[in-house]
Amino acid sequence: MISQDDLGNLKAIAGEQFVSTGESVLNLHSHDESYHTPALPDVVVWPHSTDEVSRITRYAFEKKLPITGWGVGTSLEGNPIPVNHGIVVDFQEMQKVIAIRPEDFQVDVQAGVVYKELNKALSRHGLFFPPDPGAAATIGGMIGNNASGIRTVKYGGTKDHIMRLVVVLPGGEVIRIGNRARKSSSGYDLIHLFVGSEGTLGLVTEATLRLVGLPANFMALRVAFPEVKNATDTVFKIMSSGFSPAAMEFLDSNVIGVLNRDRNLTMEERPTLLMEFNGFSNEGLRDEMDYIEEICAENSSTIIDKGIGQEERDRLWEIRHLTFESLKRQHPGLLPLIVDVAVPLSSYSDTVAFIKKEVSELNAYVFGHAGDGNIHVVVMDDPADGFRWAKVDEANHRIVEKALAFEGTCTGEHGVGIGKRCFLPDEHGDSLELMKRIKNLIDPEGIFNPGKFF
Amino acid sequence: MISQDDLGNLKAIAGEQFVSTGESVLNLHSHDESYHTPALPDVVVWPHSTDEVSRITRYAFEKKLPITGWGVGTSLEGNPIPVNHGIVVDFQEMQKVIAIRPEDFQVDVQAGVVYKELNKALSRHGLFFPPDPGAAATIGGMIGNNASGIRTVKYGGTKDHIMRLVVVLPGGEVIRIGNRARKSSSGYDLIHLFVGSEGTLGLVTEATLRLVGLPANFMALRVAFPEVKNATDTVFKIMSSGFSPAAMEFLDSNVIGVLNRDRNLTMEERPTLLMEFNGFSNEGLRDEMDYIEEICAENSSTIIDKGIGQEERDRLWEIRHLTFESLKRQHPGLLPLIVDVAVPLSSYSDTVAFIKKEVSELNAYVFGHAGDGNIHVVVMDDPADGFRWAKVDEANHRIVEKALAFEGTCTGEHGVGIGKRCFLPDEHGDSLELMKRIKNLIDPEGIFNPGKFF
Repeated sequence: MISQDDLGNLKAIAGEQFVSTGESVLNLHSHDESYHTPALPDVVVWPHSTDEVSRITRYAFEKKLPITGWGVGTSLEGNPIPVNHGIVVDFQEMQKVIAIRPEDFQVDVQAGVVYKELNKALSRHGLFFPPDPGAAATIGGMIGNNASGIRTVKYGGTKDHIMRLVVVLPGGEVIRIGNRARKSSSGYDLIHLFVGSEGTLGLVTEATLRLVGLPANFMALRVAFPEVKNATDTVFKIMSSGFSPAAMEFLDSNVIGVLNRDRNLTMEERPTLLMEFNGFSNEGLRDEMDYIEEICAENSSTIIDKGIGQEERDRLWEIRHLTFESLKRQHPGLLPLIVDVAVPLSSYSDTVAFIKKEVSELNAYVFGHAGDGNIHVVVMDDPADGFRWAKVDEANHRIVEKALAFEGTCTGEHGVGIGKRCFLPDEHGDSLELMKRIKNLIDPEGIFNPGKFF
Repeated sequence: MISQDDLGNLKAIAGEQFVSTGESVLNLHSHDESYHTPALPDVVVWPHSTDEVSRITRYAFEKKLPITGWGVGTSLEGNPIPVNHGIVVDFQEMQKVIAIRPEDFQVDVQAGVVYKELNKALSRHGLFFPPDPGAAATIGGMIGNNASGIRTVKYGGTKDHIMRLVVVLPGGEVIRIGNRARKSSSGYDLIHLFVGSEGTLGLVTEATLRLVGLPANFMALRVAFPEVKNATDTVFKIMSSGFSPAAMEFLDSNVIGVLNRDRNLTMEERPTLLMEFNGFSNEGLRDEMDYIEEICAENSSTIIDKGIGQEERDRLWEIRHLTFESLKRQHPGLLPLIVDVAVPLSSYSDTVAFIKKEVSELNAYVFGHAGDGNIHVVVMDDPADGFRWAKVDEANHRIVEKALAFEGTCTGEHGVGIGKRCFLPDEHGDSLELMKRIKNLIDPEGIFNPGKFF
């Protein structure tokens, strides 16, 4: 528990009005967007600098207080829920874009910068930070989670775009990792150790991100198929033929149905692929489109809506960006469990077929970043209804087991948090022990985001 | 020192004829391709399996014997020189390509597989493993070193292509890391901790590699410029315009001169760029070629030799593959010190200009993977000549200091080994301490490749 003394000391570091124990503040920092049980922090602090984060951390270390980083709480596995209470460090006051270096395709940011705001600022330089998590996440949250999304199939995830980090370690020490060269073989790769560690090893306060140029030419297709297998086989065929789509998404007929109802659309309610390609010229893209259409036709595609240019791309892709909101709106009062497995592409069809059977009696919507073999199932239900939720939970377990049997992973992009802890022994075997040893080395008191991972 | 007893025990593990203390064998494993002082191992062992590596390691751990992994000894910073003697584990008997999975763009290999042999086997499936280190390295060596090369500008380095590893830890424990999905956010990223750790944390015995499709269409250019700055400014302009060359190399006039003499060629002895582009169609590549030529002309290019198609590409690029051999042949009896800095692209011109001044009185050849900001300087001299070598060494130091001042790195691709140890405190600051703590955690007895990194 936090004492009046503690509060006074935290206020001395961050400033009177940047420390709060107000009920609504604590509530806001007790849950993410998932079904996981909320837990209240004792106090929320909004630091303004790496130095303040370091001093808060040193204080927490001395007092053995739990300390959990907070972006905006858009994660989906309970990753930032302060299950052991203590201090939540909210990065909202650290939203500075420190330096844009268009000539090097790089930007330095504070951890609290919101992904979408950053890309707005970068677009003026013809650049963007490609790992699009969909949600209004912060860069710090994306780094903690190794977030990724629809563009990862072409550009990689967050971990592929981090050049430098400033990290506060659990004792309050500040370390600077990495450099600004495009490649390096100098020493152990600490960048990747912290990216995806979900605030259990350190608090990232600043980062240098590697950017890419905004594409100039767009081609997109929305293609419907009679059966799931036609769609998933098409994904495999396109990806294994060496195409490099900028995005390649699968949506099952349930998703299309919800979108039709929620948005008053009239799409054919069938398994659907959404694809985007970028290229050097529209002529090249037109050639590519012909090839892609041919592959779709060979897999019995029934409808192909397609277009060249950014407007066409945006028209065809609008539905994808609406999906999660529409799903939630069509199931008021229910919460989502989101399956997030990823499998090798050769197992993609079998995995989706398995999933469709497993979830046939649930409010389940199958979609995902097909080009990466990443499959989501949004199951809408009531966690308070023990009987129903047990079925939801069982389905999730069986799907993860299947993905692991295919040598895949329990989480393609949402991270471990609370929800995936139980799968780590199965997925990582003996290497989980090494992860635990590293955690104990860096955070011997276990104060950083306790109750996660292990 | 190794006792007769130790030899007997090692022979019991690997087999009588796979353990040697023969003079020529020890000599062969005492040096790499660099100028660094050789050191003889006490014994060389050729294991056949992960299990044998594990048993050898457990034995070494119990007896506190140094143990150093060995591919083929092509590294350039003394990385595998057994400075504390002990056991060298040579992976030559572990050259199995375990499974090629063309449908997933993946291959499982043992660590001793030679890079070029692997790509020969993969080419039958239209695939290749892109981090081309130039030398006849093994996959295990490339992983240890995070090797990269001319294609890294497009495809990334070794670290970007490792999906799974089997690693023997210093106590003999075998861990399996990673999975076969294209993305994952599950637990700490141990893959990147071992890639580039140069055998100081574990011995990699098997790996699953991520492959890419062989390009079908090629376009290449060789362009000469009046001054270094015209060439380096062209690199910056092309890279910052968002082009994605498959390779982009700089060669200074000295390099061209050596090639002319050694290969009886008549190239214009001027700063030169070699470029390769791949594309979806030859038409697209022709358009791209026009743009590239325009940029070169704006920077006063004097000669442009160019071509479309694989034959033309191979013709234009042949000189690059001959460079290192020609340099060595033209300086018989001398050894190379190879500068290997990398800097942000915006500092590329300034860095090369600085280097040209620093090395003007040495047998120095400046070239490198310009698209990555990676600069090599091969300085040929005699390490036994203290006065001369001190000048070589000083130049290397000043160049590295300059690269670090530009927020670059002391090694873009050759690794730390012996030669770059002295620069790590400067480059990594406080994060070097965390690297040391991780080393002590995983290898508390310090038996794995001792004398490197720290």
